[in-house]
Amino acid sequence: MNKLGSIPLKDICIQDEFWNRYVELVRKIIIPYQWDILNDNLEGVETSHSIMNFKIAAGREQGEFYGAVFQDTDLAKWIEAVAYSLATDPDSKLEELVDDVVELIEEAQCLDGYINTYFTIKEPDLRFTNLKEGHELYCAGHLMEAAVAYYKATGKERFIHIVERFADLICDEFSPEKNGAGYPGHQEVEIGLIKLYEVTGKKKYIEQARLFLERRGTSPNYFLEEEKNPKFKPIFPEFMHYDTAYSQSHKPIREQTTAEGHAVRAVYMYSAMADIAAAYNDKELLSVCETLWKNIVGKRMYLTGGIGSSGILERFTANYDLPNNSNYSETCASIGLALFGRRMAQITHNASYMDVVERALYNTVLAGIAMDGKSFFYVNPLEVWPGNCIKRTSKEHVKPIRQPWFGVACCPPNVARTLASLGEYIYFYDENSIWVNLFISNQTTVKLQNREATLRLATRFPYDGKVHMEVDGEEGFCGKLYIRIPEYAKEYCVFVNGLELTQKEITNGYLEIEITSSKKTIDMEFTLKPRMIRANPLVKEDIGKVAIMKGPLVYCMEEVDNESNLPAYYIDSDTELEEFYDDTLLKGTMVIQCDGKKMIQEEWENETLYSEHPVKFAEKKIKFIPYPYWANRKTGEMIVWIKEFV
Amino acid sequence: MNKLGSIPLKDICIQDEFWNRYVELVRKIIIPYQWDILNDNLEGVETSHSIMNFKIAAGREQGEFYGAVFQDTDLAKWIEAVAYSLATDPDSKLEELVDDVVELIEEAQCLDGYINTYFTIKEPDLRFTNLKEGHELYCAGHLMEAAVAYYKATGKERFIHIVERFADLICDEFSPEKNGAGYPGHQEVEIGLIKLYEVTGKKKYIEQARLFLERRGTSPNYFLEEEKNPKFKPIFPEFMHYDTAYSQSHKPIREQTTAEGHAVRAVYMYSAMADIAAAYNDKELLSVCETLWKNIVGKRMYLTGGIGSSGILERFTANYDLPNNSNYSETCASIGLALFGRRMAQITHNASYMDVVERALYNTVLAGIAMDGKSFFYVNPLEVWPGNCIKRTSKEHVKPIRQPWFGVACCPPNVARTLASLGEYIYFYDENSIWVNLFISNQTTVKLQNREATLRLATRFPYDGKVHMEVDGEEGFCGKLYIRIPEYAKEYCVFVNGLELTQKEITNGYLEIEITSSKKTIDMEFTLKPRMIRANPLVKEDIGKVAIMKGPLVYCMEEVDNESNLPAYYIDSDTELEEFYDDTLLKGTMVIQCDGKKMIQEEWENETLYSEHPVKFAEKKIKFIPYPYWANRKTGEMIVWIKEFV
Repeated sequence: MNKLGSIPLKDICIQDEFWNRYVELVRKIIIPYQWDILNDNLEGVETSHSIMNFKIAAGREQGEFYGAVFQDTDLAKWIEAVAYSLATDPDSKLEELVDDVVELIEEAQCLDGYINTYFTIKEPDLRFTNLKEGHELYCAGHLMEAAVAYYKATGKERFIHIVERFADLICDEFSPEKNGAGYPGHQEVEIGLIKLYEVTGKKKYIEQARLFLERRGTSPNYFLEEEKNPKFKPIFPEFMHYDTAYSQSHKPIREQTTAEGHAVRAVYMYSAMADIAAAYNDKELLSVCETLWKNIVGKRMYLTGGIGSSGILERFTANYDLPNNSNYSETCASIGLALFGRRMAQITHNASYMDVVERALYNTVLAGIAMDGKSFFYVNPLEVWPGNCIKRTSKEHVKPIRQPWFGVACCPPNVARTLASLGEYIYFYDENSIWVNLFISNQTTVKLQNREATLRLATRFPYDGKVHMEVDGEEGFCGKLYIRIPEYAKEYCVFVNGLELTQKEITNGYLEIEITSSKKTIDMEFTLKPRMIRANPLVKEDIGKVAIMKGPLVYCMEEVDNESNLPAYYIDSDTELEEFYDDTLLKGTMVIQCDGKKMIQEEWENETLYSEHPVKFAEKKIKFIPYPYWANRKTGEMIVWIKEFV
Repeated sequence: MNKLGSIPLKDICIQDEFWNRYVELVRKIIIPYQWDILNDNLEGVETSHSIMNFKIAAGREQGEFYGAVFQDTDLAKWIEAVAYSLATDPDSKLEELVDDVVELIEEAQCLDGYINTYFTIKEPDLRFTNLKEGHELYCAGHLMEAAVAYYKATGKERFIHIVERFADLICDEFSPEKNGAGYPGHQEVEIGLIKLYEVTGKKKYIEQARLFLERRGTSPNYFLEEEKNPKFKPIFPEFMHYDTAYSQSHKPIREQTTAEGHAVRAVYMYSAMADIAAAYNDKELLSVCETLWKNIVGKRMYLTGGIGSSGILERFTANYDLPNNSNYSETCASIGLALFGRRMAQITHNASYMDVVERALYNTVLAGIAMDGKSFFYVNPLEVWPGNCIKRTSKEHVKPIRQPWFGVACCPPNVARTLASLGEYIYFYDENSIWVNLFISNQTTVKLQNREATLRLATRFPYDGKVHMEVDGEEGFCGKLYIRIPEYAKEYCVFVNGLELTQKEITNGYLEIEITSSKKTIDMEFTLKPRMIRANPLVKEDIGKVAIMKGPLVYCMEEVDNESNLPAYYIDSDTELEEFYDDTLLKGTMVIQCDGKKMIQEEWENETLYSEHPVKFAEKKIKFIPYPYWANRKTGEMIVWIKEFV
């Protein structure tokens, strides 16, 4: 299999109207803000204690471990985000800060290579005795990803050597000779080991990742077995009666055909499976990945690219079970879906994967972060009524406002590292060709057959469908350019060097264009008219409803732009959707408006709950804004799927 | 206040086509079945251990306590149901069985009067140290209710004396001089103490009930305070971060204006508050009860009389928050609502309370029990899709099939005692008048001013609106008959001794008729045509939907009578609803049918989740059955609120 490469982040510079406001947040706001949190310098946010835990483990400070068992990943994900940021925007002071942190991590590393502040400080004798809940391998994976990112950004090897020593310990500890049955409760180390293999070339790391995957779900179930060990000590009471599907260990991975259990774990695992399939040229495993992908995107995914329908345990449920106001749809799960989809696209060269990646990035991932970069959603509902988001009820996980920082702080640093690495999603390449996946204005340099070219892409996507590209190659530069034709671009035209392309060659959803060193301009125009989307009628919650999309962007109604009781609004299927750019709204955004009706209260006194009163409507103007921008103004209701007169 | 009496159960004989199938189940099936369960004689149902716990506490057997802290109530509620059954159907063998149980309870009673097998066996030193979770007072209340019922049925005083000794201990322990701040975590003892006062005349019992109520929610919060006691030992981990509204202790009771927290606790408390208001002639407290009632029935109650919108913690949430497929709507909560409403009707003589009581009894209470009497619903959703009722997800509490017996077995014996005491709901009376609340065929004897009469009521209600009554009074018998005109009976006619009543005197929703000793026949006819009900448009989940009712009975669609994907069905507001009695279906029931349409799959392949496909419909016949009868055939989808073309 020919797995396409991502262009190194340092070779790509994003200058995009839509994305820069977020990408810049990472560097200017999130990274320093999160650093303050990691150091417990901020009041009014939940204590992180992450740096302090490392200092205690390193012996620099006295004290108790504080936080979740996976608290170390806060720091790891922060380093990873910083590394991506340094790749595109070098910053020597920030780099020094990371160097200090790397030194701290090394000091906190045990002599045998082990790194985990929870177990080192609190339970040194219980290492690897509770893989189900202990998260040591999960933390290890994030450290490896951070180390690889930092190495790629700076060329510095110290962190790589630190995690190598840990990886060596893991390979030894979980070798077929020692603990030949164990695998992580929360997948992630597989991705870390594979990345570590990619930069070190040490085959044993990827082999260990493969072993972890292949062991998973075999009989007897490891997690049920380890509970019998007298050293086993439970960590989370809610896992008392363990459901093996929760951690995708209900079946061997090759027998899994539906996406089950905790959504983040699932997509992290599928990402590693895709990597292994490519590295080992394992077509059977790739086919398993395709089946699982198809199950997600065809039956278990929200319009926004959210996954995980159940608030309880943040997990997948059943085909077509997609409730809009009680789902989890964790930001991290959509990030994982993007990671999985990107790998599948790199392996199969099929644009349809990037349709979904784009959907996840533009909607759920962006919705995860406030416009000021300082508050975050874990949970991404498609319908919210603040009045019933009540603690210790079935809606306790749904929040109408983003939270400053969480006890379990996985999403904020995960959003940061994703935005900081956005460049990796825009292009893929191999020796001869370049694939253009996302329409985000940027300038990049790329080499085909050792000849370099500069690519420039300029667009106001997703608000405008015009995309202008320039390929400025050195002498002898030639190859193929594959430009993704998004599923929603039903009509489009292409001009190469000003001449319209009449014969369009489409391969796997990509338009194929020969390029040579003579400067080429490519101009495309996609129709991006707002459209009314319906869900398959098997999605019970969406029957009789439509959602508005423009390009990859899902739109929603907010109470602040309309009135309360948003579920009472109806539109006609032939209503005209007007759009206009409002540069005073939400730092500038395309707004969609239309005529609609609202079911009204007339004849109902407030106290009457049920009666035979007839239905009455009032004419209303309806206003939609992009879904990722919701909850950035006054707290109120929000809705994506609105009723349709049928 | 003139609180009306209920006619003693031994003076009323129910012979009703609709109800007898259930009432007889109690005597023939449920009581012996539950006896077997209490004795752990059945396989395949969850262990009760209830009798064994008492034997261990009594010193008759060796062993460990097993079950929940409130396991004793299984036995208490069983005795209460048996007592009601003995009142109407004497059975000397059954009575002997109860006498033996009473002896066992007495043996298990501590010298100082304390009865609770959990604490006596397991934690004798921790009595009354965790009122929040310990349920000792809750168990005490159920024992008192059982003792009173048994005394009323048999005249035997032994059980009364046993619970009196316990009540004396409670009055001492929680006297203002000793623990003057404590009150139960789960309300129930208040009802028990009031009933015990009613049969013993000992004022201190009702006074203790009043004290418990008045202390509740005062500051500092007792439950938060008791956690500081070094003897405090947590029982349920989910109560770690206690939400005082959960147990209605967030405010003093007189300041409460909305129904909050655990629904069963709430309505048990409101019932006791109503009793206290009547006994102490406390108008302010009655007005609090009226406010709370209005909040429930006007803003927080399902069409079926279910209450408790949140699956998590079985509790109330917010006004108009009434999700149909994730609600709790516990059977016990609707029983409690009926208890509360009955008291309010007895106190205020207002028929509107009985409209709600009737709604709860006919729908949620009956739905709680299978037609064979051997399986039960705790949770009563208005929409079910078996495919997403998955353990350890947000729908884990929703079951598409009734369960044989539960670990927490509150609902089955509660349904049994409610059905066995159904007679108490039919009539109220005082010295001069009789109120007819429910149209259930029966024969009863009643005395007004010491003159006796026999009342006969014959009807095929709720399937037919004709009600025939005969009042056969002895010489000098006279008084007033108040017949409830249900809210749904928009049209009706009345004939007294064959002559149509043209001048109808309505007082508080009751039609007033003078009766004398000359034999009187009263014939009424209510229009009970099936009707389409809508919810107030503030109920977001029901916008654009209708439900079908006939009289007090809610109807539903089941998959077995229709097709799968019930939410895809639509009807027109002017669709004709045909009804017919099918005596082969569900042991005989009135079925409602109409023409409708179903949104269909055409153009959607199974794998397409979102697209711009137009909406298409197919014509379908739609069939409805009474809601209480759902889930008595093949497992499948069920829906109450179906879509309407608007």
